[in-house]
Amino acid sequence: MHSIEEIRTIFTSYLQQETILREPKNLYEPNTYFLQIGGKRLRPCLLILATEIFGGKTEEALAAALAIEYFHNFTLIHDDVMDKAPVRRGFTTIHEKYNLNTAILSGDVLMIKACEYLAKVNPIYFKTIFDIYTQTAIEVCEGQQYDMDFENESIVSQDAYIEMIRLKTAVLLAAAMKIGAILGHAKQEDADLLYTYAENLGIAFQIQDDILDCYGAENLVGKQVGGDIIQNKKTLLLIYAIEQSKQNNDSTLSAILQNKSISDKEKVNAVLEIYDRYNTQKYAEEKRDKYVFDAQEALQKINLADNKKDILKQLISYLVMRAY
Amino acid sequence: MHSIEEIRTIFTSYLQQETILREPKNLYEPNTYFLQIGGKRLRPCLLILATEIFGGKTEEALAAALAIEYFHNFTLIHDDVMDKAPVRRGFTTIHEKYNLNTAILSGDVLMIKACEYLAKVNPIYFKTIFDIYTQTAIEVCEGQQYDMDFENESIVSQDAYIEMIRLKTAVLLAAAMKIGAILGHAKQEDADLLYTYAENLGIAFQIQDDILDCYGAENLVGKQVGGDIIQNKKTLLLIYAIEQSKQNNDSTLSAILQNKSISDKEKVNAVLEIYDRYNTQKYAEEKRDKYVFDAQEALQKINLADNKKDILKQLISYLVMRAY
Repeated sequence: MHSIEEIRTIFTSYLQQETILREPKNLYEPNTYFLQIGGKRLRPCLLILATEIFGGKTEEALAAALAIEYFHNFTLIHDDVMDKAPVRRGFTTIHEKYNLNTAILSGDVLMIKACEYLAKVNPIYFKTIFDIYTQTAIEVCEGQQYDMDFENESIVSQDAYIEMIRLKTAVLLAAAMKIGAILGHAKQEDADLLYTYAENLGIAFQIQDDILDCYGAENLVGKQVGGDIIQNKKTLLLIYAIEQSKQNNDSTLSAILQNKSISDKEKVNAVLEIYDRYNTQKYAEEKRDKYVFDAQEALQKINLADNKKDILKQLISYLVMRAY
Repeated sequence: MHSIEEIRTIFTSYLQQETILREPKNLYEPNTYFLQIGGKRLRPCLLILATEIFGGKTEEALAAALAIEYFHNFTLIHDDVMDKAPVRRGFTTIHEKYNLNTAILSGDVLMIKACEYLAKVNPIYFKTIFDIYTQTAIEVCEGQQYDMDFENESIVSQDAYIEMIRLKTAVLLAAAMKIGAILGHAKQEDADLLYTYAENLGIAFQIQDDILDCYGAENLVGKQVGGDIIQNKKTLLLIYAIEQSKQNNDSTLSAILQNKSISDKEKVNAVLEIYDRYNTQKYAEEKRDKYVFDAQEALQKINLADNKKDILKQLISYLVMRAY
C-alpha cells in the first residue's frame, strides 16, 4: 500500500502524461492550464486508496481516477463561470484568462474526456462503474442548481442545505471511493458501505468548511475569515442562526444582513457575535460530528482488516478535524 | 420496416415519455422547453432507420437514439450561448429565455443524461457504442472550436473548412447511423461502411446548406437568403470566391467584405454577383456531388438487399438534393 502522498505523486505524474496538448490548441490549452494549477487531487487519490485498500493494483485505478479528476475540474470551470469567480487556487479562472466561450467549450470537452477515461477501466466493471458515474454526475449538477437557487431564496431549511451539500460535494467523493473499491475487487456490500462512509465524510467535510470560514486560522484555510458571511452565503451556521433569531424574536441578524452601509469587517464581527449568542459553532460541530459518527459506523461494518480500517479512520481526522 | 415519418412519430413519443420534469425545476424545465420546440429529429431517426435496415427491432434502438438527440440538443444549447443567438427554430434560446447560468448547467446535465441513456443499450454492444460516442462527442467539440477559430482568421483553406464541417456536422450523423447498425446486429464491416456513407452524406448536406443560403427558395430554407453573406461567414462558396479573386487580382470581393456602410441587401447582391463571376455555385455543387458520389460508393459495398439500399439512396436525395 502507498501513502496518500505517494498516491498523489503517482497520480499527478499520470495526469501530466495523459493531459497532452492536442489540436485545436484553443480548445485544449485552457484545460492543460487549469489542470496544472493543481489542487489537492483529493478525489482521484481517494479512489486509488480505495482500490489499494481492497487489494487491487494502483494501475487498475489510474484511468478511473483521472476520469473523476477531469469531471471535477469540468465542474470547477463551469462553476467559476456561473459564480463569476475571477480566481481559483490563486490563479486566474479560464473565463477570465481566455473568455466565456472558451470556458464553456473547454469544460464540455473535459467532461467528455472524463467519459473516455472511464471507458478504459477493467471491462468487467465498466457498466457498473459507468452507472455510478452518470448518476453522480447528474446529482452534482442538481447540487449546483440548488446552490444557485438558494441565493434567491430568503429561507433555506437545514435539511435542504444538507441535501445540497450532499449532492454538490459528498456524492462525488463517495462515488470516487466506491468506484475505487469496485476496481479493487471489493464485494458489492463493502463497496456500498464505503460509499456511505465517504458520503457522510463528505457532508462532515463541507460543514467543517463552513465552520472554518468563521473560526479557522486564516493562513491555514487559505481564504479570508468570514468570506461566507460577507457574501450572505447560506451556510449551516447562518441558517441555524436565522432560525434561532426567529424563535427568539431577535431581529439583530436580519438587520445586519440587510445593512449595506457597514464595512465587511464590522459585518463579520457583528454576525459572529450573534453566532456566539446562539452557540452556533457548537451546534455546527455537533451536526458535523453526527456525520462523522455515521461515517465511522459504516466503516465498522466493512469487511476489512483493522490496519486497513485505521487508514480510513485517519482519513476522517485528516479531512474533517483539520485546520483549527 | 417503418417509414422515416413513422420512425419520427415513434421517437417523438418516446422522447416525450422519457423527458420528465424532475426537481430541481430550474435545472430540468429549460431542457423540457428546448426539447419540445422540436427540430427534425434527424439524427435519432437515422439511427433507428439503420437498426431497422439491418433487421433489428425499433425498441432496441430507442435509448441510443434519445442519447444522440440529447447530445445534439446539448451542443445546440451551448452553441447558442457561444454564438449569442437569440432565436432557434423560431423560439427564444435558453440563455435568452432564462439566463446564461441556466443555459450552461441545463446543457451540462443534458449531456450527462445522454450518457445515461447510452448505458441502456444492449449490454453486448455497450462498450463498442460508448467508444464511438465519446470519440464523436470530442470531435464535435473540436469542430465547434475550429468554427469559432475561423471567425478570427482572415484566410481559411477549403480543406480546413471541409474538416471543420466534417467534425461539427458529419461525424454525429455518421456515428448515429453506425450505432444504429450495430444495434441492428450489422457486421463490423457494414457498420463501418455505413459510417463512411453517412459521413460523406453529412458533408454534402452541409455544403448544400451553404448553397441554399445563397440560392434556396426563402420559404423552404426557413431563413433569410444570404444570411451567411451578411455575417461574412466563411462558407465553401465564400472561401472559393476569395481564392479566385486572389488568383485574378480582383479586389472587388475584399472591398465589399470590408465595406461597413452598404446595406445588407446591397452586400448580398454584390457578393452574389462575384459568385456568378467565378461560377461559384457550380463549383460548390460539384464539390457537394463528389461527397454524394463517395457516399454512394460506400453504400454500394454494404452487404444489404437492394430494397434496403434503395432507402439509403433516397435518403441522399431527401437530405442533399432538397429545397432548390
